[in-house]
Amino acid sequence: MSNDIIISKKPSSIRNLFRDSQLICPTSGMAPGYVQTNLAILPKNYAFDFLLFCQRNPKPCPLIEVIEPGKYIPLQSAPDADIRFDVPKYRIYENGKLSKEVDNIADIWRDDLVTFLFGCSFSFEEALIDSGIKLSHIDNNRNVSMFITNIETIPAGIFSGPTVVSMRSIPRDKLVKTVQVTSRFPNVHGAPIHIGDPELIGISDITSPDFGDVNIINEGEVPVFWACGVTPQAVAMKSKPELMITHSPGHMFLTDIKNNEVAVI
Amino acid sequence: MSNDIIISKKPSSIRNLFRDSQLICPTSGMAPGYVQTNLAILPKNYAFDFLLFCQRNPKPCPLIEVIEPGKYIPLQSAPDADIRFDVPKYRIYENGKLSKEVDNIADIWRDDLVTFLFGCSFSFEEALIDSGIKLSHIDNNRNVSMFITNIETIPAGIFSGPTVVSMRSIPRDKLVKTVQVTSRFPNVHGAPIHIGDPELIGISDITSPDFGDVNIINEGEVPVFWACGVTPQAVAMKSKPELMITHSPGHMFLTDIKNNEVAVI
Repeated sequence: MSNDIIISKKPSSIRNLFRDSQLICPTSGMAPGYVQTNLAILPKNYAFDFLLFCQRNPKPCPLIEVIEPGKYIPLQSAPDADIRFDVPKYRIYENGKLSKEVDNIADIWRDDLVTFLFGCSFSFEEALIDSGIKLSHIDNNRNVSMFITNIETIPAGIFSGPTVVSMRSIPRDKLVKTVQVTSRFPNVHGAPIHIGDPELIGISDITSPDFGDVNIINEGEVPVFWACGVTPQAVAMKSKPELMITHSPGHMFLTDIKNNEVAVI
Repeated sequence: MSNDIIISKKPSSIRNLFRDSQLICPTSGMAPGYVQTNLAILPKNYAFDFLLFCQRNPKPCPLIEVIEPGKYIPLQSAPDADIRFDVPKYRIYENGKLSKEVDNIADIWRDDLVTFLFGCSFSFEEALIDSGIKLSHIDNNRNVSMFITNIETIPAGIFSGPTVVSMRSIPRDKLVKTVQVTSRFPNVHGAPIHIGDPELIGISDITSPDFGDVNIINEGEVPVFWACGVTPQAVAMKSKPELMITHSPGHMFLTDIKNNEVAVI
């Protein structure tokens, strides 16, 4: 099956390929028009504090769905999916350290595990492109640059830490439109949290990202920063939970929710 | 001190009058421009399920703040307030039954109590009036009509039940503006969930509300329905928690947050 055929399929068909590991690959560009999510799975004893952390920090931690302890069917976002199999690749962290990458988590599943699905920037990038805003990292086939900032999240219980942002370089005459378009999507990180001078949010060298790829800011472009889904994972990891499961970078969970369904207006 | 002087004060000054019970009265119209909230306090063993219920049902349960177990300072919404004293009147429910009304809860406070503050319709009503939309229940000095509908909430853990709505009668030529204005405020119930025929959402007699006052729908007006903050209280009560504390109807908690701060655009 060619890549183009796979990409244009419905989320459920692609999930089925992931389910029995026929396909293991990053999900960027797949099932266009549908929300993809970041994944974080934690034991129940962390769940209230972590849910509270997300409630207090909706920009870096925009919840699409939380699944009850021990349950693995995302009833709201993809009722025929199984969260133990349908993410293309998972990372297992034990006591805050990566222990392995796997293509399903059936054999380590436990009755006390709580699944958190977070909206991801693919949704608002699609909306930006649809609005005629060129995103140079996509044109250059690169990942966004991500930075640890000096903007503290609001702590909750054991969870605290700095906000991680993603940077996109936007033509100056598209700044207003960029704010307008992304404001419609608070459930997938929403409006930017900073426009312009990186130093003001604690980024000393824009050409030296903490995660992702280097991206050049061309003449006439302005760096624009969005709260990033790496934040909740980084914050959770800091507390060194005995077990934490995430997606592997770029290998997201595909939901049945259309991007425009999560728009607020 | 005259009522007009009290009403126009800052939220913190009015809270101080509530704090030492100099004043015990409903808060409608007080501290205009600031968010007032509904209150629900539950023991920790209910807190994860209840927070999950709110996450799944943001329209009836729009969280403004959740305070950690045992803590009584709402750091985000009113950092100099004390939730044990600063609500004008509280209701204590034991095993789902109203046991008493009190003007502070200091002597029954416990280290395992979790406080939930929900946005309230006063904020979006102010925005509607500011946009030139007359609200006849206010002109007639009545409470809104509230109804139990056939719209089920999404259950979470032990919590489930029907959505309760408030009804406002809106001139037909203001319907579009009404949707636009309230859409900006998802944290205070947001856009309506139904416009027009009450029977479609299980309301057989619009002149016989389950809570609040009767309100007449005049010629040229259409009934518009919003998810209502009574929903989370009704849902929690159904589970008959050994202890639950709420505000007394109309006696809300006054925050320092301006209405326009919670607008999404």
